[in-house]
Amino acid sequence: MTKTALALLNRPSLAAPPHREGAEPFVLVDSGQPHVRVLDLGVTRGDGVFETISIGAGRPQALRAHLVRFARSAAALELSEPDLDAWEAAVRAAAAAIDPVPEAFVKTILTRGVEGEGRPTGWAYAAPADDFTAARRDGIRVVLLDRGYRHDVAQTSPWLLQGAKTLSYAVNRAVLREARRRDADDVVFVSSDGYLLEGSTSSLLLRVGDRLVTPGVDLGILAGTTQGDIFAFAAQRGLATEYALLRPEDLQAADGAWLVSSVRHAAPIRRVDGVDRPVDSEFTSALNSYLVSRTE
Amino acid sequence: MTKTALALLNRPSLAAPPHREGAEPFVLVDSGQPHVRVLDLGVTRGDGVFETISIGAGRPQALRAHLVRFARSAAALELSEPDLDAWEAAVRAAAAAIDPVPEAFVKTILTRGVEGEGRPTGWAYAAPADDFTAARRDGIRVVLLDRGYRHDVAQTSPWLLQGAKTLSYAVNRAVLREARRRDADDVVFVSSDGYLLEGSTSSLLLRVGDRLVTPGVDLGILAGTTQGDIFAFAAQRGLATEYALLRPEDLQAADGAWLVSSVRHAAPIRRVDGVDRPVDSEFTSALNSYLVSRTE
Repeated sequence: MTKTALALLNRPSLAAPPHREGAEPFVLVDSGQPHVRVLDLGVTRGDGVFETISIGAGRPQALRAHLVRFARSAAALELSEPDLDAWEAAVRAAAAAIDPVPEAFVKTILTRGVEGEGRPTGWAYAAPADDFTAARRDGIRVVLLDRGYRHDVAQTSPWLLQGAKTLSYAVNRAVLREARRRDADDVVFVSSDGYLLEGSTSSLLLRVGDRLVTPGVDLGILAGTTQGDIFAFAAQRGLATEYALLRPEDLQAADGAWLVSSVRHAAPIRRVDGVDRPVDSEFTSALNSYLVSRTE
Repeated sequence: MTKTALALLNRPSLAAPPHREGAEPFVLVDSGQPHVRVLDLGVTRGDGVFETISIGAGRPQALRAHLVRFARSAAALELSEPDLDAWEAAVRAAAAAIDPVPEAFVKTILTRGVEGEGRPTGWAYAAPADDFTAARRDGIRVVLLDRGYRHDVAQTSPWLLQGAKTLSYAVNRAVLREARRRDADDVVFVSSDGYLLEGSTSSLLLRVGDRLVTPGVDLGILAGTTQGDIFAFAAQRGLATEYALLRPEDLQAADGAWLVSSVRHAAPIRRVDGVDRPVDSEFTSALNSYLVSRTE
């Protein structure tokens, strides 16, 4: 019984080709043992990037979209360009090495490596997913929390790394503690000038009539892979899709609202700052049926 | 020849007493070997805190002030309260285990530990300091960079963890790359509403006539241990000291300006955004003589 699996990437495969031949670009190791040195900038400075990829019935979902975003985050941090073929092989190997379960995930991590060595560190970790049945069916309670930045900060101040999926996520954890204190499950970040942004590790999706709406990625938020798939799904069903500047009153007035992400999938928002709002059970169910059964 | 040393804290000593008896609260290990697991929230989320303590001629400097701030950062992240006596013993042991050098440092790190285990991880790492002679004598070039937050964000939005010394320092590293692109060595952060804040890992200090001035810690910045010691030193020399709201024009007009920190000590600012400014060599030299020779 193998519940988790860890693929450590070899040094040469952490940067883009010149292509290796022959040997695997990673080695499968025991995830319970320590593999990270205390001088790794991933742990001393949160200086690295990550992705979390859902595995449905053994198949990675939206894998290439995740890997492309992984490379984009690495570029934002000026890390060397990852060899995405090597990473794809590592993700598949880690996913295949755990016992079959309906839903699992693989987390990929690329750090700047041990300080002074100038070589990145990378691994892919696979494990079964938690059970999100209740969140998907009954919904979640959110609070709106200030992210502190203006909506245009990614344009004015790119060194703040907004829109990159970095290992510096202490704030994303702190807001969940604040949410719990306020009797909620998650947050929707709001810019300092009052625009809706995203969840702590998810995208915000609204349904307004027969239109799906999400905040634009020029707001310094992540380009959601799950949100992207949902927009493609919506187009097939004849729903319009739109990226827009949204205000808290748009969330209040929406016919449906969700936080969507790779592993929890579509969690309908049933309460905002203590005020109940309707859940669109039928569309939620359709969304999650689609998301759970996605192939690549 | 031992250039570096690593003291891993034992689990029971990572939280405040009930006091252990007998055994050391840490174990000295080989810092070149991996000691961190890939599920440690320190590396997956930058979810932890740190301090860097200078060691002058074998003696930790401002040790208690660092440890008190360490505990304050831990409290901001709702980590369990560290047993400061155990940490002090670990810092001293790591510092004593390296070959004698005039200047060294010890870095202490406390993380939330491996996800799901509910127990923190902690270590103290000692190594010789880099040679900062040139920065202390000739000065550094800085650029002013937007931090994105208003000056009052620590009061309005405490979940943003401003003022805590966390492992989520990817932005503090990114701004140094931006500084290098602009032909500079370091940055002075400015709030989105135009107030001077601090360096990437240092405090800003200005001399205006016979008065030393620094931004107040209610601006979501770190309470500088070195800045605190300098204020005490200044008081002995009959200089007034003040915490104030400062604007970029105050830096421009100041008689002296420094970024001060635990290991580099007082680095005079000799250029701001490409414009040279005078360096007060005499006072700089007095400051660094004091800082280098501090006992606890």
